[in-house]
Amino acid sequence: MAGYADDQEAIQRRLRRIEGQIRGVQRMVAEGAYCIDVLTQISAATRALESVALLLLEDHLNHCVREALAVGGPDADGKVSEAAAAIARLVRS
Amino acid sequence: MAGYADDQEAIQRRLRRIEGQIRGVQRMVAEGAYCIDVLTQISAATRALESVALLLLEDHLNHCVREALAVGGPDADGKVSEAAAAIARLVRS
Amino acid sequence: MAGYADDQEAIQRRLRRIEGQIRGVQRMVAEGAYCIDVLTQISAATRALESVALLLLEDHLNHCVREALAVGGPDADGKVSEAAAAIARLVRS
Amino acid sequence: MAGYADDQEAIQRRLRRIEGQIRGVQRMVAEGAYCIDVLTQISAATRALESVALLLLEDHLNHCVREALAVGGPDADGKVSEAAAAIARLVRS
Repeated sequence: MAGYADDQEAIQRRLRRIEGQIRGVQRMVAEGAYCIDVLTQISAATRALESVALLLLEDHLNHCVREALAVGGPDADGKVSEAAAAIARLVRS
Repeated sequence: MAGYADDQEAIQRRLRRIEGQIRGVQRMVAEGAYCIDVLTQISAATRALESVALLLLEDHLNHCVREALAVGGPDADGKVSEAAAAIARLVRS
Repeated sequence: MAGYADDQEAIQRRLRRIEGQIRGVQRMVAEGAYCIDVLTQISAATRALESVALLLLEDHLNHCVREALAVGGPDADGKVSEAAAAIARLVRS
Repeated sequence: MAGYADDQEAIQRRLRRIEGQIRGVQRMVAEGAYCIDVLTQISAATRALESVALLLLEDHLNHCVREALAVGGPDADGKVSEAAAAIARLVRS
């Protein structure tokens, strides 16, 4: 079971809203909306995506990493480095 | 005419690809894909959104800001502060 | 004359404060302070550096880019691409 | 003992180098260096600070969070939310 199972519906709702934001940006671009207004909507969609990522990451720490650490051994080390690499990708994106 | 008129098609193509990425993330979440794989796709979509924003911003500087600066006066000052505020939102998102 | 000439003192003051924050982080690490407290200070220093960068960028648009655009020609194009590349480095760092 | 005990020397070395970068930026600003060159150095210092933060975070997950999860109970929950909040500050800074 995925680490985000309890938040699956909330995550899907947020992703559908982000999909709607991206479609809204396409409509603005099609209508030739003012650059700054398009940029404002893109910044909002970017922040919304980051929030979903942070929620997924917290769920991952709380479930997948927690369970691996409870068992211990090399799998526990692997889970922590894997989470650290995902955090690095988020911080740098 | 919008500052991004020459890139309008390329921007729409990229936005449609990002919309597809977001729908792909929804499918992954629906199927209970592994958290880290979902996060990797979200980071990719975030970076793609940022690239579109950077292209829009360069077009905006090259057209809207350039024209306002050619005319000069208070409108030129306003355009520069407005662009600076949009850059700040991007950097902080 | 640099584009930030009018803000030179304010920028130096902020950079000295950031230098002090970095030295403070070194003291915390030397004393074995709690990881999360060290991270909080590093996030604060990062945000302060970003604010200085945003001020420099606005000054750059307001002076160097504005002057190049007033003259026009290939130098104007070069200044806009150069600014766009600096913005991309900021957004991705 | 801090979670970063094994990396304490490497972290201090990196922080001293970042302090040197900030002082280098101050010298550039004092000499009226070109805005874009100053911005490039600030982006480099920002990225270096982020790398230190990511190392501290991995150490924190590997030691402090791991130990709290091994013990379990409310302290384990607290450690995960605390780490998630620190990650959010990093991603948004």
